Amino acid sequence: MSLLTVGSVAFDAIETPFGKTDKIIGGAGTYIGLAASFYKNDQKIVSVVGEDFPKEMLESLEKRGIDLQGLQIKEGEKTFFWSGRYHNDMNSRDTLVTELNVLESFDPIIPDSYQGVDYLMLGNLSPQVQGLVIDRLVERPKLIAMDTMNFWMDIALEPLKETIAKVDILIINDEEARQLSGEYSLVKASKIIRAMGPKYLIIKKGEHGALLFHGDKVFFAPALPLEDVFDPTGAGDTFAGGFMGYLASTGDTSFDNMKRAMIHGSALASFCVEKFGTERLAAITKEDLDARIEEFVGLANFDMEYVID
Amino acid sequence: MSLLTVGSVAFDAIETPFGKTDKIIGGAGTYIGLAASFYKNDQKIVSVVGEDFPKEMLESLEKRGIDLQGLQIKEGEKTFFWSGRYHNDMNSRDTLVTELNVLESFDPIIPDSYQGVDYLMLGNLSPQVQGLVIDRLVERPKLIAMDTMNFWMDIALEPLKETIAKVDILIINDEEARQLSGEYSLVKASKIIRAMGPKYLIIKKGEHGALLFHGDKVFFAPALPLEDVFDPTGAGDTFAGGFMGYLASTGDTSFDNMKRAMIHGSALASFCVEKFGTERLAAITKEDLDARIEEFVGLANFDMEYVID
Repeated sequence: MSLLTVGSVAFDAIETPFGKTDKIIGGAGTYIGLAASFYKNDQKIVSVVGEDFPKEMLESLEKRGIDLQGLQIKEGEKTFFWSGRYHNDMNSRDTLVTELNVLESFDPIIPDSYQGVDYLMLGNLSPQVQGLVIDRLVERPKLIAMDTMNFWMDIALEPLKETIAKVDILIINDEEARQLSGEYSLVKASKIIRAMGPKYLIIKKGEHGALLFHGDKVFFAPALPLEDVFDPTGAGDTFAGGFMGYLASTGDTSFDNMKRAMIHGSALASFCVEKFGTERLAAITKEDLDARIEEFVGLANFDMEYVID
Repeated sequence: MSLLTVGSVAFDAIETPFGKTDKIIGGAGTYIGLAASFYKNDQKIVSVVGEDFPKEMLESLEKRGIDLQGLQIKEGEKTFFWSGRYHNDMNSRDTLVTELNVLESFDPIIPDSYQGVDYLMLGNLSPQVQGLVIDRLVERPKLIAMDTMNFWMDIALEPLKETIAKVDILIINDEEARQLSGEYSLVKASKIIRAMGPKYLIIKKGEHGALLFHGDKVFFAPALPLEDVFDPTGAGDTFAGGFMGYLASTGDTSFDNMKRAMIHGSALASFCVEKFGTERLAAITKEDLDARIEEFVGLANFDMEYVID
């Protein structure tokens, strides 16, 4: 199937208890695209970078089968830059620098060749831009998933709710679900948020795994227990990319297949955090991914069929 | 099989954001015994209460098939009393009152009829008392599991390590595992703690589920996402009781069967937190438990067998 990702392609500078990086390649669109490239799809991206963005990085995305027609390169402008520092527990971070640059006036132009796309993944961007993408697709995609963050809940709640009402799957973390719903209990939060429109809600809990809610069903995908979480940057986007990449490649949106997609996303995210930025994700093979998925099977599956009385 | 539980039978007074109780029945031994009584075993308890402990409560434990020969009733003395207040997130609590009373001079006398017991569950007590029980059993049980808490790590680390060295399974929570090992990563912590003696380590993470480590294997049992956690008191003991009760009833200590035991423990714990104290646990039937285990199957299991290429 075809999968369109809309999301930032950016520079990050990251500090963790394990060290710090110079400007490295990051951005939601990059992580989603990389993760989704492990699955056979006709993959496209809508994004924007400045003239400072390295051409060889764009070529490496193209080599992974990502159609970059919708990636705008703004002459005379600079790429979006984010810098952050993680605390010792790796569960919280401070933003040190945010330079919007090309994102400030980002107009998500959809190339004609992108029309008719089957699956749409809206990475974290302003809800207005996310909504515009949906509106500009002449035919509604079969499945639309959307990420967002607390920042937009603080400054653009109404536009955010308008966009949320248009998507099938909302993918947010536990704190965002609590803020958006006003409920501490994630079960209660999931009902309130799904009443806003999305039939499916994924709540990411970082090292504590991720929940998928739909109707009366709940599925829980664990996170793989790791010796070290080296850098959590991009783990959520990688999860989303693996989830949508797998779904699109199978063309099957049944709940049972979404369970598999959750495990694929979790497996890719478990690689992502093992090194800085996209380094680990860019280095692994399909065989590495398959082996890790087997680890998830051992970690989470059990067979209750055992007769006692 | 036969299962011996050693643990407090006590009074608790609990405050949560949902309300507060007068003195109600609690104690690790009570929760473990109640939970284990859902499985067919020859169940015994070693514990101590004062003359203020209600006879009808002891009778209700007996009616559940628990042999109380090893439960001492101290004339002229008072039962152990604990009072605590949970914070809004239910993940942390303050102890308001601890009156050791009969526990202060508790000598865990093993009735002759208890000798030869197959499974031993040591609820949280001083490591000296826990160690004494092991020493007083003429024949080592097939499987010994032990709970403890940070309090004993603070004031009795060396005796604690001596007792830990004698058991097969240590069952503690994430913060206790971090304190005992000095490692934040639970994977690293599990290696250090298992090097102290226990071949198996269970790390309970409250609403985030529980991990079982053994050799190179890890299993993760999720917690059931609940609308409300009403009162977490006793959930960890209930988990341990369900885990050991199921294991003993099957007589099978394979890793695959321990996975099932983890799910049984988690299912019983999910009931425990739905009302104050032992109220919910005392009211459910085997059918309720079976239905909840089916919920865990839906929550956690997935089938990756789906051919794509």
